[in-house]
Amino acid sequence: MKYIGIDIGGTNLKAGLVDDRGTVLATKKEKIAQIHNAEALAWAMVSMTQELASAAGVPLDQIKSVGVGVPGTVEIHSGSLLYTCNLPLRNVPLRRLFHRYLHLPLYIENDANCAALAEYYVGAGRDSKRFVTVTLGTGIGGGIVHNGKIYHGSNGMAGEVGHMSIVHNGLDCPCGRKGCWEQYASATALKRMTREAVECHGDSILAQVVAENGGVISGQSAFIAARRGDAVGQAVCDEYIAYLAAGITNLVNIFQPDTLAIGGGVSNEDEECLLKPLQRLVARDSIPCPAEKKTKIVTAQLGNQAGIIGAALLGKKKR
Amino acid sequence: MKYIGIDIGGTNLKAGLVDDRGTVLATKKEKIAQIHNAEALAWAMVSMTQELASAAGVPLDQIKSVGVGVPGTVEIHSGSLLYTCNLPLRNVPLRRLFHRYLHLPLYIENDANCAALAEYYVGAGRDSKRFVTVTLGTGIGGGIVHNGKIYHGSNGMAGEVGHMSIVHNGLDCPCGRKGCWEQYASATALKRMTREAVECHGDSILAQVVAENGGVISGQSAFIAARRGDAVGQAVCDEYIAYLAAGITNLVNIFQPDTLAIGGGVSNEDEECLLKPLQRLVARDSIPCPAEKKTKIVTAQLGNQAGIIGAALLGKKKR
Repeated sequence: MKYIGIDIGGTNLKAGLVDDRGTVLATKKEKIAQIHNAEALAWAMVSMTQELASAAGVPLDQIKSVGVGVPGTVEIHSGSLLYTCNLPLRNVPLRRLFHRYLHLPLYIENDANCAALAEYYVGAGRDSKRFVTVTLGTGIGGGIVHNGKIYHGSNGMAGEVGHMSIVHNGLDCPCGRKGCWEQYASATALKRMTREAVECHGDSILAQVVAENGGVISGQSAFIAARRGDAVGQAVCDEYIAYLAAGITNLVNIFQPDTLAIGGGVSNEDEECLLKPLQRLVARDSIPCPAEKKTKIVTAQLGNQAGIIGAALLGKKKR
Repeated sequence: MKYIGIDIGGTNLKAGLVDDRGTVLATKKEKIAQIHNAEALAWAMVSMTQELASAAGVPLDQIKSVGVGVPGTVEIHSGSLLYTCNLPLRNVPLRRLFHRYLHLPLYIENDANCAALAEYYVGAGRDSKRFVTVTLGTGIGGGIVHNGKIYHGSNGMAGEVGHMSIVHNGLDCPCGRKGCWEQYASATALKRMTREAVECHGDSILAQVVAENGGVISGQSAFIAARRGDAVGQAVCDEYIAYLAAGITNLVNIFQPDTLAIGGGVSNEDEECLLKPLQRLVARDSIPCPAEKKTKIVTAQLGNQAGIIGAALLGKKKR
């Protein structure tokens, strides 16, 4: 059997044909800007499913299910999209609309949970019974997998680890709180810290790195500068990693998962510069326990494809 | 069938005979100071079990199991006590020692987890599938019950919610971290804040309340002063509740449990002064969701007996 996974991203709607080992066999994408209403979204999902299956020569009755990952709030039981920042749509009964055209099981899930499920099945969490992912992007997404199932909480909204406050009365967060972790440890936060450092230290190697990149600050700028021996760049990295470690240590002390994987663009950074110092801080600060029982802090393995793979594998087991 | 629950406290070893509805039928206690070694602990547990059963006219074969709640670290599978601050004992194979004298199933568990299990079975978490308890005492203990089971994490040490840092680079915690929640929201923290306020405002009603209590600062002092209209007392209460809400909101955003119960002495405070303002802050600051799906923030119901009841009910279901 094959699966279709669809990832509703910021720019594109990406769909993939996936086998039950999580291998992506083919992909398609469509510009999200072309989707103006709920029917258009449902129809895009239907047509991408049909085209992927047809191009791969897979009859539709060999497609076990279609899964959709949404950056936002979903209602998994009814298969509805309640809210997403990427589309001007609210309260869309996606399963019902999809089933007007195609009678395949349709699952819908938060995209961070999809990424966690993908890593659990075929990535960094393969051997873990208790698994947590933390995705460092515009914000911080969290996914909790326990005994092979996504942990949803009572209302489908569990795992909002980015909105754990780690700085009492700290920076304002759009969620309404102050001091949320994602204000300090998301890719957005890293770029803000980098920008502030560049503004204060116009003659630093960090400023030069940014200038060489056409003035564009990226999540890599500080790490590149640090590798060139820049104290300013190193200070940004150190500050960022300290904040990242603070939230991760909190999650370790609360969950004690077998494995905690960090994903998102920032996690691709050189191991010596990010993962290793992070591991050292978490080991130092988490509740002492025998080395062989400590949570393994690792990087996610599936990159951008985690969303498609996880959405596809929503149909893999009865959930 | 009946159960024996034993709670290893700071002063006493308390044991209770409990029925399967969680009713405590009889109790016994013994001074903890009399217990000098592992054998004495095992023997105290055996003799308390025998005496409780005998006094109640319950034959030993009608006792389903004996459970022990320990403030510290345990190894549930082997039934060992690894570490507790209340006894000068380390790495005690308690089940093995107990079985030299008495062949009843023996369970051992962290005391915060016992309290959570008791509230889940017969207290504030009765109707909850996902249930979290937060016990405000010397530190802050946490217990997580999911689908009828205590969540232990990979190493039996999950639920250390008191060691979630909420103030980056904040107060030192004996665990080695800085800014741990229990440094701001435990009963100990409330007393520290009260003491600091009394020192700064020697002419306040708060200072008078403390003087009336023989100079002893309690977790109630600030609340009593606030009820008498004291701005100093009220400020201490407000500050304390804000810190309490910060950690609870974090737990709600991460777990979205059906119910979160606060226990410990502080939780007995007048509802209008503690629970209601706490509920308002958590509702304001947690991720928005429909009112009927919001985590219910309540007070624990079983008080000091939660430890005995929870330890007893460890044997209630196959775990």
